Amino acid sequence: MLETKIFMDEKPKLKNPVCLVGLPGIGNIGRIAIGYMVHQLKAKKFANLYSPYFFPFVMIHNNMIHTLKNEFYYCKYKGKDLILLIGDCQTYDPKGHYEIAGKILEFLNSLGCKQIITVGGFGTGKVSEEPKVYGVVSDTDMIKEYKKFGINFDIEGQIGTIVGASGLLVGLAKLYELKGVVLLGETTGFPIITDPTAAEAVLGVLEKILKIKIDLSKLDEKVKAMHDFIKKLEDIQKQAIEQMKKEKKPEELKYIG
Amino acid sequence: MLETKIFMDEKPKLKNPVCLVGLPGIGNIGRIAIGYMVHQLKAKKFANLYSPYFFPFVMIHNNMIHTLKNEFYYCKYKGKDLILLIGDCQTYDPKGHYEIAGKILEFLNSLGCKQIITVGGFGTGKVSEEPKVYGVVSDTDMIKEYKKFGINFDIEGQIGTIVGASGLLVGLAKLYELKGVVLLGETTGFPIITDPTAAEAVLGVLEKILKIKIDLSKLDEKVKAMHDFIKKLEDIQKQAIEQMKKEKKPEELKYIG
Amino acid sequence: MLETKIFMDEKPKLKNPVCLVGLPGIGNIGRIAIGYMVHQLKAKKFANLYSPYFFPFVMIHNNMIHTLKNEFYYCKYKGKDLILLIGDCQTYDPKGHYEIAGKILEFLNSLGCKQIITVGGFGTGKVSEEPKVYGVVSDTDMIKEYKKFGINFDIEGQIGTIVGASGLLVGLAKLYELKGVVLLGETTGFPIITDPTAAEAVLGVLEKILKIKIDLSKLDEKVKAMHDFIKKLEDIQKQAIEQMKKEKKPEELKYIG
Amino acid sequence: MLETKIFMDEKPKLKNPVCLVGLPGIGNIGRIAIGYMVHQLKAKKFANLYSPYFFPFVMIHNNMIHTLKNEFYYCKYKGKDLILLIGDCQTYDPKGHYEIAGKILEFLNSLGCKQIITVGGFGTGKVSEEPKVYGVVSDTDMIKEYKKFGINFDIEGQIGTIVGASGLLVGLAKLYELKGVVLLGETTGFPIITDPTAAEAVLGVLEKILKIKIDLSKLDEKVKAMHDFIKKLEDIQKQAIEQMKKEKKPEELKYIG
Repeated sequence: MLETKIFMDEKPKLKNPVCLVGLPGIGNIGRIAIGYMVHQLKAKKFANLYSPYFFPFVMIHNNMIHTLKNEFYYCKYKGKDLILLIGDCQTYDPKGHYEIAGKILEFLNSLGCKQIITVGGFGTGKVSEEPKVYGVVSDTDMIKEYKKFGINFDIEGQIGTIVGASGLLVGLAKLYELKGVVLLGETTGFPIITDPTAAEAVLGVLEKILKIKIDLSKLDEKVKAMHDFIKKLEDIQKQAIEQMKKEKKPEELKYIG
Repeated sequence: MLETKIFMDEKPKLKNPVCLVGLPGIGNIGRIAIGYMVHQLKAKKFANLYSPYFFPFVMIHNNMIHTLKNEFYYCKYKGKDLILLIGDCQTYDPKGHYEIAGKILEFLNSLGCKQIITVGGFGTGKVSEEPKVYGVVSDTDMIKEYKKFGINFDIEGQIGTIVGASGLLVGLAKLYELKGVVLLGETTGFPIITDPTAAEAVLGVLEKILKIKIDLSKLDEKVKAMHDFIKKLEDIQKQAIEQMKKEKKPEELKYIG
Repeated sequence: MLETKIFMDEKPKLKNPVCLVGLPGIGNIGRIAIGYMVHQLKAKKFANLYSPYFFPFVMIHNNMIHTLKNEFYYCKYKGKDLILLIGDCQTYDPKGHYEIAGKILEFLNSLGCKQIITVGGFGTGKVSEEPKVYGVVSDTDMIKEYKKFGINFDIEGQIGTIVGASGLLVGLAKLYELKGVVLLGETTGFPIITDPTAAEAVLGVLEKILKIKIDLSKLDEKVKAMHDFIKKLEDIQKQAIEQMKKEKKPEELKYIG
Repeated sequence: MLETKIFMDEKPKLKNPVCLVGLPGIGNIGRIAIGYMVHQLKAKKFANLYSPYFFPFVMIHNNMIHTLKNEFYYCKYKGKDLILLIGDCQTYDPKGHYEIAGKILEFLNSLGCKQIITVGGFGTGKVSEEPKVYGVVSDTDMIKEYKKFGINFDIEGQIGTIVGASGLLVGLAKLYELKGVVLLGETTGFPIITDPTAAEAVLGVLEKILKIKIDLSKLDEKVKAMHDFIKKLEDIQKQAIEQMKKEKKPEELKYIG
């Protein structure tokens, strides 16, 4: 595998689909928000993304191999077609971020998708009872459109950059004929595993944008379940790194000090 | 050489071949188990894999150049066609692991191979007189099938990840139309060069899976011989690294500190 | 995005265009000199360069996504056709420098451009009231031609290398059928953000080379404005790096220690 | 420039040419030996190799840009056709070594070259008045053939690896239909810039292999001249690295700590 590849199980017929992206990040807000939507909307998986820029190890789950990947789901909900992208990880490699973002956008373009909404976190350093949702857009005219949904558009001066997939997918969207918005859920930014309150705030905004209704009553329960899996995955990654450092295996004998 | 390449000396005609993989790793269990099979079954080499992701040095052996490589052998044993993959090293590079695994699986697919069995070690931190063999599979239905051969399928919770080729070859197998299993021989995990007892346990399981008989009487002797070669190779790699660090050669003047 | 790409909005019809390059570097001399020309000559943007070798983050500017890029402008000024290249950043990656320089030269060649002038800084360690402009050329015969414009050609012994885009674009120019010169404005070399005096000296030389007149009366004002933006961009990059280091995100779990 | 490229000025018609390689390395033995031959045999340059895996800076020499490269020369001497490869540097990158070696071998193959002789150094830790020349070959039958020329073939146990181009070019030669030998001049291995005595020993052996006569009377003088240039180039490389580390330029803000 020389480059990032997306393997499609099925090519769904979608009409003006909107893509929602929830990958691991600060507070894992996107991951649990979009992961919850996948579950509640009974979305169907139709493609997997594998990348040589993911860690070169596999995990063991119920005696089965689990290879690190990102997953594409779709659903049709009251005339609205959605593509949902969730995953185990982001890449650890700067160049890999561009490769993966480009592959995803190319793929979405091929599915007729014109709009992408990525979900991330915006660490403020303090706990908020009613976290805000901030927006950053690819095209000026989107600000007016999205303000209606309760998205906050006055973050100038407070935050400077968005690192990784959430930002790049929207930042490069135009090159692949998509428009995009990043939704940033306000969160503490402390190293917590998941922030369900911020995820709920984002889900509230997504309901308005997509004009759909998501039953949030099982969110806490589901987040609890996801929390355990996510924590295990993060711990395993950290352990594996430590293990690799200790074992003095060929992998460690890097050519240039 | 821009990417990993497999050079074929001969294209063997094989019928439903099973591929066995034994590359360097914890206790070098796979390497000595499959290396012993190559010897005992008088398997014939038919292809070499070279990679820009291997160390950029050559070794000297009897005044001859020895370039780092992985080697493909085949044999036909009582109507059973086998491909055996052994090698000097794994890559030191995360991305390289994906490239090499992909090239191997692509190659096996082109040879009509539908099943891959990789052999690795599972470090428990203690010495076992009768080491178990653990299994991790690519498809659920394989668990039932392989349980019959004395493979242990209850490692959940004990080990989280498999690093490198053994894991990735099975983890990516499906994408190349193969099914796979990782056999993990129980071993101490201490930095020992070779663990022949664990290798013997794995060979016992392979005999059952493949319905073949391997004369194990020369295992100790062969492992002794291989042990010396493997140790030399490992020492040389370590020396070369140290030498490169000391020499202040152009290689050392890495652009970014 | 697997490699550096230039996206063209419009293909301008240019006659023997000369390309002027001002990318970030010592004292940001090129950046402010060529950035000022873009403004004064009302040059029109016609293409953007994106690269997987730029940092994998986006910036937020007026609630809009700002993706790191280099920008191509053109203008026709008194029968003289110019291409002006400015940008947010250079790559942090050694190999990336070659890829990006090659892509730019290939692109210029496709536009019929035969001459490239890059602008950089030459740090002397002392403050100069009337900074000199030094020249380094791709072809011997250019020395005589450019001496007429007040360019200093006696830097041998004082400076040994030119790191990054300014040097490589001229160093590789011949391979893409261009001739080139690097103009180095004398500057202190201390870590200052911008050196408008050196930039003015370079602009004076460019006026002579191109036989054009640039109104320098607004330089200080414009440099002040650019200074703030450049500083913000540099600060944000530094912050982002620090932030990434602290957050212990997947990006940080680099495979090999 | 996405990958290593060889630019040919002229395609020489050569009959069974032998390629001699002298790139920087321990004691720069190959570099001065083959560099001296280029001069003495009045060999003509016909191609340049550039690589994105070389340092991303250019040098200034007589107000001209000097881009790092490797150079191919050829000469016809008493019915013997020779290709001579010398250069400013080797790559600093492990993967780059494979890419560059592959490109060189592919190029030699396209010129009908079937034999490659690379020259390196073998550091013993002591000063030798009459340094030996050791040989390492790609094919067993070459040992007998080359022993006649006074090459020492009993280095087993003394040296384990050959790092970089000299080794890889011979180690990968077979894959490109060439045979090869590495000639290693015995040298102290201390960090000296050039070892003309070892170079002379290698030239003596090359005279026998190629059945040519090289006037060695100007060796000391030429080595003195080359010594200065080589030292300057090495110093400049080291300075540039240090400079880059200090300047806190964008290049330094590497994404992952």
